[in-house]
Amino acid sequence: MRDISLHPGENVDDLMFKGLRIIQNRTGFRFGMDAVLLAGFAHGRGARVLDLGTGTGVIPLLMAGAQPASRFTALEIQPDMADMAQRSVALNGLEERIRVVCGDLLQYRQLLEREQYDTVTCNPPYTRADEGSASQQESQAVARHEQSCTLEDVARAGYYALRYGGHMALIIRAQRTVDILDTLRREKLEPKRARLVCPRQGAVPNLLLVEAIKHARPGLAWEAPLTVNGPDGTYTPEMRAIYHMEDENG
Amino acid sequence: MRDISLHPGENVDDLMFKGLRIIQNRTGFRFGMDAVLLAGFAHGRGARVLDLGTGTGVIPLLMAGAQPASRFTALEIQPDMADMAQRSVALNGLEERIRVVCGDLLQYRQLLEREQYDTVTCNPPYTRADEGSASQQESQAVARHEQSCTLEDVARAGYYALRYGGHMALIIRAQRTVDILDTLRREKLEPKRARLVCPRQGAVPNLLLVEAIKHARPGLAWEAPLTVNGPDGTYTPEMRAIYHMEDENG
Repeated sequence: MRDISLHPGENVDDLMFKGLRIIQNRTGFRFGMDAVLLAGFAHGRGARVLDLGTGTGVIPLLMAGAQPASRFTALEIQPDMADMAQRSVALNGLEERIRVVCGDLLQYRQLLEREQYDTVTCNPPYTRADEGSASQQESQAVARHEQSCTLEDVARAGYYALRYGGHMALIIRAQRTVDILDTLRREKLEPKRARLVCPRQGAVPNLLLVEAIKHARPGLAWEAPLTVNGPDGTYTPEMRAIYHMEDENG
Repeated sequence: MRDISLHPGENVDDLMFKGLRIIQNRTGFRFGMDAVLLAGFAHGRGARVLDLGTGTGVIPLLMAGAQPASRFTALEIQPDMADMAQRSVALNGLEERIRVVCGDLLQYRQLLEREQYDTVTCNPPYTRADEGSASQQESQAVARHEQSCTLEDVARAGYYALRYGGHMALIIRAQRTVDILDTLRREKLEPKRARLVCPRQGAVPNLLLVEAIKHARPGLAWEAPLTVNGPDGTYTPEMRAIYHMEDENG
């Protein structure tokens, strides 16, 4: 293990995939299933990938493991999170492939190269700016609540960064389906592939994965809904594959 | 059976629900599973229901059976189809409850009462006006292809007819998800409830049911995906319930 400094309250967690590790706070914002689902769904085509609002950097870290030929830019507004992501990149020896940029995506024209990316990923704030209350700790509030940017801001930054025909992949609460599809289309990122995520068979979907293509024609291909847990409460085989878990009986 | 005249090529088919019957052409447009799914999904709240592009009238006939207290207006552009629907209404003795109107929904201001309906249903043309070729027979072409009206036309007519807070329910090919959600929101009919229909467990969804509420706030509640066929190729229990089939083993 490289000599990477940990700040008080931080842990090194095993991503259980290609030996990758990530630095996280024990109590603050920690990556969740949504980030893993998005990394699996995006399977970023192409050589250059941008992650907007990368947080601890989990999405580029997982995608770097899955796509050894790709290079990543990871944009994060919160300096402490960007610093943590940068140290995770170093911890994994991925400095050549993942570049962490600390900045506000509203400044995308200054921060990003125009039309240079094949894929943009984003796990945007889950709650509309006009609903609910801002949550506990500031870092969690920024990550979970639409206070630093809206879906429109995310789409505009993605549009700017993507090459013609490039892909933008997002995950969002299913109840915001209309918001995300409508915003993407308005920003000339046409939704082309989507998938609902259901906690259990026969349960109400709670998350939506969607991939849009810059300047594509209309027409959305739904994938079969993804079921997270089987009847016994453990991950379904498909979820185990997304989490890159080995089959213990295999 | 009442003395209702049948035209050459027409049959009386049993709707297998509350003794209802319907007149259809043996070879022309015949109602499909989509109409039955929509009638089941809409379960039209309220006393007054409007069906736009009713075809043979299958949706108001099925809903009249399920909601004995509701009254229906059934609008159809094709005179031969409207006439067939009118004769089916008479055949079932529903003249007091279902009014068939022959006219073009683009003329909604002349044909419909404003803000008088609790629920509007529509099984709109499946294909975008700008894609594919018009099909064989004219009556099938009008029913299946967006040549007489667009989704926007349908939404505008629905908006005009619905009272404040009224519901509009539609079924559409799943690949047109963005078109329908986007159009409804733009026309102030906010999508509030949706359901994907999958032919089999684990299969790609091919139909979308959606219900919008006039002037509602954003926020879409997905229902669990509906699976049509079980592993043995017969209807799932839920589909049997939608088709009002008695359980033969029950």
